[in-house]
Amino acid sequence: MTEHIPPDFRVPGFLAAGLAAGIKKTQVKDFALLYSEVPAAAAGVFTTNRVKAAPVLLSRERVKSGKGRAILVNSGCANACTGQKGIRDGQRLSRRIASSLKIDPQEVLLASTGVIGKVLPLEAMEKSIPSLVASLSSEGLADAALAIMTTDTKPKAALVRDRVNGKEVTLAGIAKGAGMISPKMATLLVFVLTDAAISAGALRKALKEGVQGSFNRITVDGDTSTNDTLLILANGRAGNGRIQPATPGFRKFSALLHDLLLALAKKTVADGEGVTKVVRILVERARTASEAEKVARAVANSPLVKTAFFGEDANWGRILCAAGYSGAPIDAEKVDIFFDHVQVVRKGQGAGPEKEEPATAVMKKGEYTVRLDLHRGASRTFLFTTDFSFDYVKINASYRS
Amino acid sequence: MTEHIPPDFRVPGFLAAGLAAGIKKTQVKDFALLYSEVPAAAAGVFTTNRVKAAPVLLSRERVKSGKGRAILVNSGCANACTGQKGIRDGQRLSRRIASSLKIDPQEVLLASTGVIGKVLPLEAMEKSIPSLVASLSSEGLADAALAIMTTDTKPKAALVRDRVNGKEVTLAGIAKGAGMISPKMATLLVFVLTDAAISAGALRKALKEGVQGSFNRITVDGDTSTNDTLLILANGRAGNGRIQPATPGFRKFSALLHDLLLALAKKTVADGEGVTKVVRILVERARTASEAEKVARAVANSPLVKTAFFGEDANWGRILCAAGYSGAPIDAEKVDIFFDHVQVVRKGQGAGPEKEEPATAVMKKGEYTVRLDLHRGASRTFLFTTDFSFDYVKINASYRS
Repeated sequence: MTEHIPPDFRVPGFLAAGLAAGIKKTQVKDFALLYSEVPAAAAGVFTTNRVKAAPVLLSRERVKSGKGRAILVNSGCANACTGQKGIRDGQRLSRRIASSLKIDPQEVLLASTGVIGKVLPLEAMEKSIPSLVASLSSEGLADAALAIMTTDTKPKAALVRDRVNGKEVTLAGIAKGAGMISPKMATLLVFVLTDAAISAGALRKALKEGVQGSFNRITVDGDTSTNDTLLILANGRAGNGRIQPATPGFRKFSALLHDLLLALAKKTVADGEGVTKVVRILVERARTASEAEKVARAVANSPLVKTAFFGEDANWGRILCAAGYSGAPIDAEKVDIFFDHVQVVRKGQGAGPEKEEPATAVMKKGEYTVRLDLHRGASRTFLFTTDFSFDYVKINASYRS
Repeated sequence: MTEHIPPDFRVPGFLAAGLAAGIKKTQVKDFALLYSEVPAAAAGVFTTNRVKAAPVLLSRERVKSGKGRAILVNSGCANACTGQKGIRDGQRLSRRIASSLKIDPQEVLLASTGVIGKVLPLEAMEKSIPSLVASLSSEGLADAALAIMTTDTKPKAALVRDRVNGKEVTLAGIAKGAGMISPKMATLLVFVLTDAAISAGALRKALKEGVQGSFNRITVDGDTSTNDTLLILANGRAGNGRIQPATPGFRKFSALLHDLLLALAKKTVADGEGVTKVVRILVERARTASEAEKVARAVANSPLVKTAFFGEDANWGRILCAAGYSGAPIDAEKVDIFFDHVQVVRKGQGAGPEKEEPATAVMKKGEYTVRLDLHRGASRTFLFTTDFSFDYVKINASYRS
């Protein structure tokens, strides 16, 4: 699995660890800790689901302070729909970690992923905390990336280094996704560590913008998890001039963060459950942004479109049909559709039987773009989606067993 | 296939036929005609998709007169996204049928189902019209039910007979569905014939109400077709006192029509693509009807919920999760969930591990109810949905080949 981890995957001033605590039935890594040696600015983005897991409720509250030192994560159990007990369990783990690390429990951020409705195996987790803390190391991010996986087939990690405000700054991110990749705030768990010096307000703003163009632009199955969590810690170790909003340094940092998040988002969608294709749905010349969004979502989430992607079947009628029921008031007889460079629909009708062969050739690729030109205005958007395969059904029919 | 057709499946004053015209590649029935020997009242409901097939555009316009004599239907080609040529082809077929039957082309209603974007094989269809007309018979409805099938595994037919306004009245319906069963106006094609004497206005009203409680309450994959069409012809042969709106006779007729449509809707959902389960999603005590609807739709269309149905996995967390992202402002900690009589969630949390076994037993059945009690108000709704199986993917990945 190390081939998926960037070389020199570390961030100055941060330690990390990941180990098997017995939360999952199999003896694989399922418990991770990220830790900043010095106080750090923190920001987060969380699920929009009305049903929010206990760690989401706790982390959302704590991150409001703009500060954070540690992120404690487990896979194998979502600690969602567990009521007050779930909250108390999270608080108890926070106190244990805080006392081991000699920090404030309010500086501990939590995230969980796995089956909904199960309570945390608290005893096993508490027993593992001393070894988790003891194994913290500047090399530990790769283990943490492994420990947060569920049905992911590979760890997802990305690294960016560049100069900001006069110093080299590092941003490293890990993510887990696969199922429940969704319309709003699409990933389950993403953690970004950076040694940049940045105000909490600027960090929050950069994160919000970065998510908009990355994790909010991917979809696997349209479901929004109860546990979606994206956290970033910035510890200032790079020694750069502190980044403030609306400065050139902020714009540079935001661009780097966006690149990092987009790289992680693309890795996440490509490793979606049972995915054999990653397809970019590009909607152009919509009248409004919301119209573009509706069309892109309808096409990207249509099971009939997604099974056709899996079958490598250039059935453009399903794409036009999805655009038609999207709720956007499109003019069917104006729409053009392209598979990469191959035009398959011209003014709402098939562009000719001679397009079948080149269109099918495009669909045989692992990645391609489906472009809808609505000819109505000047708005555009894109979404990365996937196919629907036998394996998607297989993985999800037997997820808990 | 005759076991799926009710005995004595005919309506006084109506003739029907179905034959193989070579529209499909295989030599199966693909062309059907329904015909009233006398002028009949007509009403229709059509797809809400912005992309409407040519026969939908033509029939919607013609049915506004409240009159109809013939319904000409083909499977194997949707005549959708075919532009002005599609319209001209439909008009030409209407003229041919009208001249054979010696009726007005405006009294011919059209419907098509099959691949989007292909033009009708006009020559083959025109060549078949004489035999189609020649084979019209009072016994022909069963052949018509077969001729409108696409990926349906069985013909769908239902019959109701009862006294209305002093006379025995017959209502017979045929339907085809399977894929693209959807949120709004859910079936591809439904045709109902009745010998009731009823005004066009009353017929329209009864149809609108009947659809609301039947075909608008089923969903297979959330996709809305370009071709959805429901047509009803009423020829008055029963000799009953003419039914007018807001009379006891109207209420009786409406109830019969609703029963017939619900029977057809349930047959349609049960024969959905790759379906192994039919699950009724019942949402109770929502604050508003729209809130109930949002929750029911989100649960019924969630791929994660549907694959769990297929896997017979009592993963109630996915159901609560779908309710949470439905857009309805539910209170997660108030929700109860039942699988038939087995309570699996109490106040937003698992009702206990001892529920796992009885809940799984419910899920092993072919039909059951998932009930969500939101404890917020007095509104309720239901939806029939299905599981997502390997076969759904298989059928749709290779539909056109």
